[in-house]
Amino acid sequence: MHIDLRSDTVTRPSKEMLAAMMTAKTGDDVYKEDPTVNELESRVAKMFGMDTALFFPSGSMANQAAIKLHTQPGEQLICDKWAHVYNYEGGGVSFNSGVSCKLVDGDRGMITAAQVEEAINPPDFYHSPLTTLVCLENTTNKGGGACYDFAEIEKIRKVCTANNLGLHLDGARLFNALVAKNEDAKDYGKVFDTISICFSKGLGIPLGTVLVGNNDIMQKAIRVRKVLGGGMRQVGIIAAAGLYALDTNVNRLAEDHRKASEIAETLQKQTYVKEVEPTETNIVIFYLTDAVSEEKFMDDLLQKNIKISNMGQGKLRIVTHLDYTDPMHELFLKTLNTYK
Amino acid sequence: MHIDLRSDTVTRPSKEMLAAMMTAKTGDDVYKEDPTVNELESRVAKMFGMDTALFFPSGSMANQAAIKLHTQPGEQLICDKWAHVYNYEGGGVSFNSGVSCKLVDGDRGMITAAQVEEAINPPDFYHSPLTTLVCLENTTNKGGGACYDFAEIEKIRKVCTANNLGLHLDGARLFNALVAKNEDAKDYGKVFDTISICFSKGLGIPLGTVLVGNNDIMQKAIRVRKVLGGGMRQVGIIAAAGLYALDTNVNRLAEDHRKASEIAETLQKQTYVKEVEPTETNIVIFYLTDAVSEEKFMDDLLQKNIKISNMGQGKLRIVTHLDYTDPMHELFLKTLNTYK
Amino acid sequence: MHIDLRSDTVTRPSKEMLAAMMTAKTGDDVYKEDPTVNELESRVAKMFGMDTALFFPSGSMANQAAIKLHTQPGEQLICDKWAHVYNYEGGGVSFNSGVSCKLVDGDRGMITAAQVEEAINPPDFYHSPLTTLVCLENTTNKGGGACYDFAEIEKIRKVCTANNLGLHLDGARLFNALVAKNEDAKDYGKVFDTISICFSKGLGIPLGTVLVGNNDIMQKAIRVRKVLGGGMRQVGIIAAAGLYALDTNVNRLAEDHRKASEIAETLQKQTYVKEVEPTETNIVIFYLTDAVSEEKFMDDLLQKNIKISNMGQGKLRIVTHLDYTDPMHELFLKTLNTYK
Amino acid sequence: MHIDLRSDTVTRPSKEMLAAMMTAKTGDDVYKEDPTVNELESRVAKMFGMDTALFFPSGSMANQAAIKLHTQPGEQLICDKWAHVYNYEGGGVSFNSGVSCKLVDGDRGMITAAQVEEAINPPDFYHSPLTTLVCLENTTNKGGGACYDFAEIEKIRKVCTANNLGLHLDGARLFNALVAKNEDAKDYGKVFDTISICFSKGLGIPLGTVLVGNNDIMQKAIRVRKVLGGGMRQVGIIAAAGLYALDTNVNRLAEDHRKASEIAETLQKQTYVKEVEPTETNIVIFYLTDAVSEEKFMDDLLQKNIKISNMGQGKLRIVTHLDYTDPMHELFLKTLNTYK
Repeated sequence: MHIDLRSDTVTRPSKEMLAAMMTAKTGDDVYKEDPTVNELESRVAKMFGMDTALFFPSGSMANQAAIKLHTQPGEQLICDKWAHVYNYEGGGVSFNSGVSCKLVDGDRGMITAAQVEEAINPPDFYHSPLTTLVCLENTTNKGGGACYDFAEIEKIRKVCTANNLGLHLDGARLFNALVAKNEDAKDYGKVFDTISICFSKGLGIPLGTVLVGNNDIMQKAIRVRKVLGGGMRQVGIIAAAGLYALDTNVNRLAEDHRKASEIAETLQKQTYVKEVEPTETNIVIFYLTDAVSEEKFMDDLLQKNIKISNMGQGKLRIVTHLDYTDPMHELFLKTLNTYK
Repeated sequence: MHIDLRSDTVTRPSKEMLAAMMTAKTGDDVYKEDPTVNELESRVAKMFGMDTALFFPSGSMANQAAIKLHTQPGEQLICDKWAHVYNYEGGGVSFNSGVSCKLVDGDRGMITAAQVEEAINPPDFYHSPLTTLVCLENTTNKGGGACYDFAEIEKIRKVCTANNLGLHLDGARLFNALVAKNEDAKDYGKVFDTISICFSKGLGIPLGTVLVGNNDIMQKAIRVRKVLGGGMRQVGIIAAAGLYALDTNVNRLAEDHRKASEIAETLQKQTYVKEVEPTETNIVIFYLTDAVSEEKFMDDLLQKNIKISNMGQGKLRIVTHLDYTDPMHELFLKTLNTYK
Repeated sequence: MHIDLRSDTVTRPSKEMLAAMMTAKTGDDVYKEDPTVNELESRVAKMFGMDTALFFPSGSMANQAAIKLHTQPGEQLICDKWAHVYNYEGGGVSFNSGVSCKLVDGDRGMITAAQVEEAINPPDFYHSPLTTLVCLENTTNKGGGACYDFAEIEKIRKVCTANNLGLHLDGARLFNALVAKNEDAKDYGKVFDTISICFSKGLGIPLGTVLVGNNDIMQKAIRVRKVLGGGMRQVGIIAAAGLYALDTNVNRLAEDHRKASEIAETLQKQTYVKEVEPTETNIVIFYLTDAVSEEKFMDDLLQKNIKISNMGQGKLRIVTHLDYTDPMHELFLKTLNTYK
Repeated sequence: MHIDLRSDTVTRPSKEMLAAMMTAKTGDDVYKEDPTVNELESRVAKMFGMDTALFFPSGSMANQAAIKLHTQPGEQLICDKWAHVYNYEGGGVSFNSGVSCKLVDGDRGMITAAQVEEAINPPDFYHSPLTTLVCLENTTNKGGGACYDFAEIEKIRKVCTANNLGLHLDGARLFNALVAKNEDAKDYGKVFDTISICFSKGLGIPLGTVLVGNNDIMQKAIRVRKVLGGGMRQVGIIAAAGLYALDTNVNRLAEDHRKASEIAETLQKQTYVKEVEPTETNIVIFYLTDAVSEEKFMDDLLQKNIKISNMGQGKLRIVTHLDYTDPMHELFLKTLNTYK
């Protein structure tokens, strides 16, 4: 039994998902003639109460395209210091859009309306980049799957509106937040200008992210996707997995959250663990005591065919997912309890 | 019966291809752990006798990444005036790489070594962009599937070497050239620095292009793919179709060529046709006489469920492919013969 | 006596111009507190009947800033194949703005409204870059100082308006055109969105170009100048030379034109000259017969302390200017007449 | 008497400097034929013991060009959170170079070798931008004219060498540091790859900054200056002021430092002042107590024809310079002492 807890991106399509894929009707999506892609896009748009959606090969490209749609080169976006768009998209904010990031020192990857307001450069002072966009992440990745309080998001929306800023949500794990906090996608559609929703994390499809937004901002999205090289052909095969996942894999995220929570509780009891961060969804971040090095701990787990991630600065990360089964969970908890 | 001759990108995966996809072993390709992707990349590299290969979601991204790997912003590449990279990749040469194109007036999309040499800006004259790359296309798209004379390519290679220029091949339809001219992929691997090979055209897989090259130039390819958003997860599902296509769909391209050739001959006999361009592979480009407008002709075909492309400036384009069956061919030739 | 006919950029400030510079009131122009810069900008704006103007360190930067103000990365501009912005600004169109050029095969650097219309990419076809700008040059540089027929410019304006395109004029030598054709600057202000006017060519100041336009497009001009590094401090010293030149050096351009015309006539009579292009302003372009090489001819002149330019492809260029005096002219004509 | 203490950029050229400018030999610097520019560049290169130097219209352009010379798009540079290149150059790092900044929380704008080392992204982890450059500032602007300990710079150099990073110095006020700490320019030339030295701040010339470096990195500097639009013509007029300033205005910076120090001491004694930051050179940064607002304080000074700067977050800034005379100093100290 191999237990891979590095990320929820490692899931493989199930038999049922594969069956849905293999019977999908396809067409050439570059001509927008793939009926299954069109159906997925329209279903996601409807779910969020927004005008339109577009399918991308990756979450990075969906985020990068959104940033491009909101900005001009030389401008600045505001995000948390741990934001995926700043840290883990290859420097794409500057490469693709010529944009810089004003980093805010948030709480577990989440920033406040007050922090956003303070981070805006004065628009008349042309020596500083013009601030035009705020990017939030929900749940946060490096912040350990933390979920925003929706009321704070609404306050950030007000700051954005008052200051002419766009508001993008990196929703790589938005479904985890919706399930964990019992929230409605349509409320998100009302406050954000654009939202990227990844389907290859908790939802378990092989690849792909949908960017959803209203027509004004999304009008040139297909041009941006084209220029980045994201136009694909009979990608309905993948979109079919997305439709299947929407039906089947959303509510079950609660199970991933339960398991993550049990892992967190178990870790908290161990003497070799210094601290476990609050665990709200499917990500557990914890720190070891000085007695045991991260390298040794990870190596010892690897000996037992268990993989977890090292995020640097002492942070170890565990992510639960679709392919992390009950027997794996039982074995892993036991391993943690008996580790020394 | 619907006959779609607009492009060879419209093909849908066959049952056998789907079966290969369904049973593919997959992993997370962002971690380079997808065994099927790794196998496809290594097989293509070997086929061309080059060091390494990388799978991309589209041909545009593979070309754009190659251009980025070869250049710095402000530099200039040389290509034919009809080149796909200049005309049909959304302005990506300038958007992604900050590079401009020196357009050469070639013959059906093909340029000569002499033309390349003349197009190089003097390297000491810093008012002009520094020329650092030549991009060829084989077969040519807008040039009607024309195939380069390999001896000319070798001459171009010499000019590139003498002038410190990289040499990239947009091989969207390279397999058509290899089959039509009975050439060896390894010879191409020897003269080009990088080659993109599209798998979703004649080879019929749903999406994807492989970029192949030697280690010196490909070293940062995975970074460039990441920053453009081309990193995908369990994309072995698609790569499996690629492996299947290499086994099954390469040699049969000769059949597409035969059908294209027969269409060209048939067109040449029609009074409503002014001119048919030489047809070497699976693309037929022709012009109508003034008696019949392109719009009317295309509409009339559409009434019979037949689709072809208008490339502008009077060029009509027909592309044969895997899903263009014998009965379709028979019906189409008959339609052309009886059209008035 | 050294005779430098390579370009009208080689002029040195006269004693009177220096006196104007040395008594100029200055301030910090980055704070927009330099009274002399402000006066020059406001005077040029008024002269062209436009809202506002901004001083730049070079014509290249003024053109590049204008192109940035009109476009988004990935878009395309239309210009003549010989345009300065495409050929001689270091690839800046792509470097600074991520924009590509659609090159039109004009007449001596001048393009027609019909050519512009044909060069526009279809706005719905997202594979091609979106066309958003037309750049004209008047007089043309590589075209030998040719002057547009103003009626043709007005037609181009109509095409631009109908197709949502901006219209920029690279007016490096616009004053030459105004003087040669007895035109009114205000007419140019009515048809163009932005105009760059170089002061260091025929007008003879040490450096600097003014970009003039209306408020809608110029609103962010100071931001673009800042990001390109064009914000200077007590540059009123230079602006004072500009004010002096507007008073003193505009009408005298007619003299440069007369001398250029006399040089052209002289060249036409020589057996070693194959062809002289029409000479409308201060630039003479001519070709030698095969009997004498360009290198030898230029070397022979250099022996006599006379410098001219080689523009490549057989084009030799002579430019008359403020510092090309009557005695020089007499000597040069004599030299041409006696050359063998 | 108007007292302008907002910045040392507000100085106007003296009579003697103007005289030097007026008699300068000039030429066309775009052809590199301006003897005075060439002399200034060669003198600065020699002073720093480096290969070559290039004159730019502004410090921003010199810094931006250096960053471009050191990096490729998508890469990352390390700098202090207050760095001029990140905060006050219009977002140019991302606009011109497609590069992002890793911000370090330094002390008064100065960072340590240990901080640099920690800020380097792991080069094999391609999700993060590749770190390739470190930018220091000496003296620091927002840090209140603080001067680096040279031993720390040498440690940073070692970290850079060990990690393949370039090292650039934004030396906008480097001469202030050299004078204040009695350091040798050649020592700086040994540890940095590129240094920008501003001539329009403490040295008092109207505009211009020299970038100095070794041949390997500077080889394409003239191309980068061209593409940014920084090529100027008879700019020897300005360079002459630079030569004059090197002879005359360097040692006298000690006087600006003394005055700044006296201002700092005076401020420290006032009840309305909460804190004064250490004052090492010509910049004084201080904070008012809550009893008096910054706006009111600045307005009250303005009533007396005295201007100072507000840098945000409670920081008020005073900068002494060439045009801040003894009588002004006396009056200003008296004003501070009697303010209520």
